[in-house]
Amino acid sequence: MYPFSAGLYAPRNRWYVAARSAEVGRVALERFILDEPVVFYRTEAGEAVALAGRCPHRGYPLGRGRIDGDAVVCGYHGLRFEVDGHCSHIPSQDVIPPNCRVKAFQVAEHWEWLWIWPGDPALADLALIPDHRTLGLTDPDWIKRSPLYWQVEGRYQLLNDNLLDLTHLSVLHADTIGGGDVAGTQERHEEGDGWVRSLRWIPNAHVTDWVRESRGIEGQVDREIMLTFAAPGFHFGHDRYFPVGSDPATATPLLDIRIFHAVTPATQTTCHYFASSAVDPATFELSATHPPDTASASASALKIFTEDVDAISEIERLLGAAGTFEEVRLRADVHALRGRRMVQEMIRAEQLSPAAAKVPDGH
Amino acid sequence: MYPFSAGLYAPRNRWYVAARSAEVGRVALERFILDEPVVFYRTEAGEAVALAGRCPHRGYPLGRGRIDGDAVVCGYHGLRFEVDGHCSHIPSQDVIPPNCRVKAFQVAEHWEWLWIWPGDPALADLALIPDHRTLGLTDPDWIKRSPLYWQVEGRYQLLNDNLLDLTHLSVLHADTIGGGDVAGTQERHEEGDGWVRSLRWIPNAHVTDWVRESRGIEGQVDREIMLTFAAPGFHFGHDRYFPVGSDPATATPLLDIRIFHAVTPATQTTCHYFASSAVDPATFELSATHPPDTASASASALKIFTEDVDAISEIERLLGAAGTFEEVRLRADVHALRGRRMVQEMIRAEQLSPAAAKVPDGH
Amino acid sequence: MYPFSAGLYAPRNRWYVAARSAEVGRVALERFILDEPVVFYRTEAGEAVALAGRCPHRGYPLGRGRIDGDAVVCGYHGLRFEVDGHCSHIPSQDVIPPNCRVKAFQVAEHWEWLWIWPGDPALADLALIPDHRTLGLTDPDWIKRSPLYWQVEGRYQLLNDNLLDLTHLSVLHADTIGGGDVAGTQERHEEGDGWVRSLRWIPNAHVTDWVRESRGIEGQVDREIMLTFAAPGFHFGHDRYFPVGSDPATATPLLDIRIFHAVTPATQTTCHYFASSAVDPATFELSATHPPDTASASASALKIFTEDVDAISEIERLLGAAGTFEEVRLRADVHALRGRRMVQEMIRAEQLSPAAAKVPDGH
Repeated sequence: MYPFSAGLYAPRNRWYVAARSAEVGRVALERFILDEPVVFYRTEAGEAVALAGRCPHRGYPLGRGRIDGDAVVCGYHGLRFEVDGHCSHIPSQDVIPPNCRVKAFQVAEHWEWLWIWPGDPALADLALIPDHRTLGLTDPDWIKRSPLYWQVEGRYQLLNDNLLDLTHLSVLHADTIGGGDVAGTQERHEEGDGWVRSLRWIPNAHVTDWVRESRGIEGQVDREIMLTFAAPGFHFGHDRYFPVGSDPATATPLLDIRIFHAVTPATQTTCHYFASSAVDPATFELSATHPPDTASASASALKIFTEDVDAISEIERLLGAAGTFEEVRLRADVHALRGRRMVQEMIRAEQLSPAAAKVPDGH
Repeated sequence: MYPFSAGLYAPRNRWYVAARSAEVGRVALERFILDEPVVFYRTEAGEAVALAGRCPHRGYPLGRGRIDGDAVVCGYHGLRFEVDGHCSHIPSQDVIPPNCRVKAFQVAEHWEWLWIWPGDPALADLALIPDHRTLGLTDPDWIKRSPLYWQVEGRYQLLNDNLLDLTHLSVLHADTIGGGDVAGTQERHEEGDGWVRSLRWIPNAHVTDWVRESRGIEGQVDREIMLTFAAPGFHFGHDRYFPVGSDPATATPLLDIRIFHAVTPATQTTCHYFASSAVDPATFELSATHPPDTASASASALKIFTEDVDAISEIERLLGAAGTFEEVRLRADVHALRGRRMVQEMIRAEQLSPAAAKVPDGH
Repeated sequence: MYPFSAGLYAPRNRWYVAARSAEVGRVALERFILDEPVVFYRTEAGEAVALAGRCPHRGYPLGRGRIDGDAVVCGYHGLRFEVDGHCSHIPSQDVIPPNCRVKAFQVAEHWEWLWIWPGDPALADLALIPDHRTLGLTDPDWIKRSPLYWQVEGRYQLLNDNLLDLTHLSVLHADTIGGGDVAGTQERHEEGDGWVRSLRWIPNAHVTDWVRESRGIEGQVDREIMLTFAAPGFHFGHDRYFPVGSDPATATPLLDIRIFHAVTPATQTTCHYFASSAVDPATFELSATHPPDTASASASALKIFTEDVDAISEIERLLGAAGTFEEVRLRADVHALRGRRMVQEMIRAEQLSPAAAKVPDGH
């Protein structure tokens, strides 16, 4: 489906952020992941669990079940499923049929979010999750902001496309983070195995009122924006402000913000969006003059994300209501199209390798 | 469609409860029955009428029409249809085309509900409606509660399945009618021509607070639950409480509640649900200590039914949003699957007998 | 699709009313026309512009864009489209790809409404728009009422059918404009190239309370109703009240109301509806006793239109929810069916003439 070729949706044998840690607890949480319901909860020891969210007996959502000990108990006929997905109790019989189980997903909790591997658990490779220490997310020297979350009424790749083409900053976010001619500045594209990177150096950029008020930066700056897309759904990078005339190779930024976005397919036409940031405590923003007021900064950040979320839902609305859509491709899309093709190649590779691609049935 | 084989929906040449008597009067009522709109009203003499609910001229719903004498008059161009479905007046012309008519359904009113035969009127056999005197519904010796009604956001067989597998009482209704180990008690299955029956004797069952408060039963009891499914959409039975140690063959119950459920396909994925009950006036519930407070008892019963209605809509939600569903079958499903197959056989038999199965066109 | 043959929707190379003039200004307005989004706005000089409403780059709705000078600027990445649909600016690059453009629709503004030609702009013939001077819409001697507008939840031909069969006045509008036996009065049918006309003379017609109160007519009248359908979506005519016993050829009406309806396909199952009227200033309604109170008259007229809009949405509801529909045709449908076939022939003619019918891609 658009923007991929017909019949292509999302790679399954990859890590995606499924939830913020604080959302998962001793009450069942249902969330659609890659078009299937999943139930999330924690064991008594606090371990996160993700199981296929539909009781195999009569299809009742386990997300409406009860957490008991380390298990989830279906709210309809009481079947009890353990953390590995096997059924340990059926109130109406002693023998448990061997096919009475649900798929247990591989999950991994890092910092304040929970990752899920929707595909074959045997293939789940923790090394594929970006190193959170390097990202600054588990680095105690950085001040992190807890992730924000949106259920977006648009297919996930629209949001990936959004993050892969930052020329939209100058228009959609003109009043907030659009300072400097982002669109007019040629980006540097880099790529590697499973990732693409966009880097821009914008000399003598103006700062918007929004940046001045929320980030304490005044006047003109040299600005550096970097964003790396770790396909299929994680984006990380930084937004740095330097004194005008700085040498990018050696200068110390006035402000250094690390940014993190996670995009996860929910249904065919909706997705989950998680966004967070981290700041170097040495920066101006956290000085005595501008105390680190997380609540106010988050409220301020909400405006930016709402602009993106609205844009994606507007595009999805027309994809659903109007006819098929053929894109005109611009030079600025080279980077975005590389990222998009990377996701498409992941999907195609799984289709060519049925063993790896098949959705494990948990048996 | 699930839980039947592909392409199978519902038997047409059978009786279904379409409405509560009090809902049908001198104002047109539209209700979908087996995926078609039907208009219900009463003649001046009070006879219930059911006609196909769409004017054959330009498709305006007759349920938005006006009742005039014994006829319904279309609200758009004024075509008038009599109780047998023939058109008796067209404001713009004197000659009535012979094909200008709507199907008239066979209906039968018993006690407080109206039955409809969606299929060929010529095949409608009143003897197929369960005997209401035997059921206690027209027996003056029993105190009846007027039926409750829900439009359920789930396909009808999910509700039949619910009523065919009472092991859910111990879980979904744990706080209300789930007293005693219903799920753990082996049921006795009986069946005959067009019906299946489940019977359970649960010795030394605890009573829930809900039963104590709403039914005046204290301490432990021996409990007998019987439910007969008269396919394709009627369930009747009883819930009896005896002193512990009773001989089921001879004992007199402390409380005897007769229960009645009617399930009728509305659209492909919704259904009508009617539920009622009757009590032996000699029982404790109606004693001086526990006066028969119908309003309070109904309010109390609402909680139980709401649990079922919610469960069915949750299953339907996943059937619509998630992929295809393959059931795991349990031992407790033997009875339910017999009932389900009975409905499926009724549908199949109609398909094999086109004369009987065809939807009469009313011409 | 009903009421046309399968696969037939609407003629594209025809004029339709797209908007009331006052709705189109210096803020982008999105409206679906024949199942495609269109963005409407005005240039600095006040000229109305209609462009395909989806940015060809990433599919963002131009109806959410910003009007700047004579252009619309996409709200996502800032692409700028001029009145002829060509892209004049891309913030991220200097060269404009030749395929980076949107279709520009031919529009024509007459009186208080804006006409659009959804098909091939090269074929747009202004002479096909009914002469507004003749209609009384640009005639200074007539008092016009500004058009009312509804987005109707029903396919456009249902509304055309409604206006083509005035026998519904006696039923649906019995309390307002249904005075006299409209349904029982044989209409005179006339037709020409692209139009059909219905004419009725109803002697000795009673006037409803509604006509008495809103139009100042008392007692019995001779009434003349004429409505011409200029396919595929414009209806104009008059509703005249004469003293009883008048000679239609020579009599002066007590009241002469010219009526105008425009019906435009929005999506497959919704349409736009515009309705207006004009009154001879010499008529009683505008006398000293009945001052021309446009606001009150409009409020009064709203009731009539709401009855039609409700009827169409009710028919559409059943077309969507119930099975396929086969019409029974009445004698009074002869005129309506001629009008409907005229529209169908227009669609068919476009399909047989691919050059004329193809949706221009704007290149």
